[in-house]
Amino acid sequence: MNFSSKLIEEAVNAFATLPGIGKKTALRLVLHLVNQPGENVEQFADAIVKMRQHIKFCETCHNLSDEPLCAICADPRRDRGVVCIVESIRDVMAIEDTSQYRGLYHVLGGVISPIEGIGPGDLNIDTLAQRIQQGEIREIIMAVNPTIEGDTTIFYISKKLKDTDLKISTIARGVSFGGELEYADELTLGRSIVARVSYRTED
Amino acid sequence: MNFSSKLIEEAVNAFATLPGIGKKTALRLVLHLVNQPGENVEQFADAIVKMRQHIKFCETCHNLSDEPLCAICADPRRDRGVVCIVESIRDVMAIEDTSQYRGLYHVLGGVISPIEGIGPGDLNIDTLAQRIQQGEIREIIMAVNPTIEGDTTIFYISKKLKDTDLKISTIARGVSFGGELEYADELTLGRSIVARVSYRTED
Repeated sequence: MNFSSKLIEEAVNAFATLPGIGKKTALRLVLHLVNQPGENVEQFADAIVKMRQHIKFCETCHNLSDEPLCAICADPRRDRGVVCIVESIRDVMAIEDTSQYRGLYHVLGGVISPIEGIGPGDLNIDTLAQRIQQGEIREIIMAVNPTIEGDTTIFYISKKLKDTDLKISTIARGVSFGGELEYADELTLGRSIVARVSYRTED
Repeated sequence: MNFSSKLIEEAVNAFATLPGIGKKTALRLVLHLVNQPGENVEQFADAIVKMRQHIKFCETCHNLSDEPLCAICADPRRDRGVVCIVESIRDVMAIEDTSQYRGLYHVLGGVISPIEGIGPGDLNIDTLAQRIQQGEIREIIMAVNPTIEGDTTIFYISKKLKDTDLKISTIARGVSFGGELEYADELTLGRSIVARVSYRTED
């Protein structure tokens, strides 16, 4: 791309470092900002820098947080006896969006993956053990993605917890609501038949 | 979307003001920046703010520029007798990328559009007239997009220039190179037959 301006080129290159944004999209964004009032652009940049400088990870669950303790861990209305183990912060948001869960979380920060050189020591598993030792937790829900790495991680954690009397569960898998059977993948459909749930009309 | 952090929410909202970026993409970008070193994020924000603060429009052709005169207008190797009229800065970049044009540009900053309330007075047409009065220009190339508004603009400018002895042309339109006839739109294909170019092998 041929820039007649060094300033534009640098701004385009800055945007193009972001995931999923190529040079053409970056240029579109930069030309949009050129036409915005200066203070709007400063507010935009400010929100990003402030976020990066002040963002913390929750001391208890490792969720992103503005305070040492995140809003979920600090909420007295949440059930402190149930902890949902997830891979990333995005999974916390996805589950929160359902409004179906009132317990706490524990963000692992990844899954065990020997290929990528991620071992149990790189994940937030020790702090999970510490939380469990405090004795308040009675149930653990594993909401880790169903990949080989995810299953390995679930296996590792459940082995670590085998001497406790915690209730351990994984989230239900099956055909999605509104999904059509013929479009479901074979593995999911197969497992949904093996793990069928008893059904009876009440009368 | 359920943010447990106000800082994240503000950064996501900042990104979501950009064209073509929704909340989900914005969140992906913000979580990417959370995992970047702080100084990288500051450099990113800095490049954008600096660009917005210091960017100028070229006094001669209205292209984006770091100096009062843009790199193209300031280049002594460019042919100062030919001026290509374009709608926007992006068109300048597109033509520069072809490396086929060695003249100067004139960026109108839009096209005449009564529906959107854009009249000739809102475009950089007066400065074009001033450039022509200086007497150095001998040819004008109209490279405005072939819409009704674009054609109106071309018609308006060519009427203004009818008392000069300038050579006026528009860029060639037709089926693209590598394009297949059956997929070309009817208007383009029809015009490419009406405006056929004579062809003879040299022997």
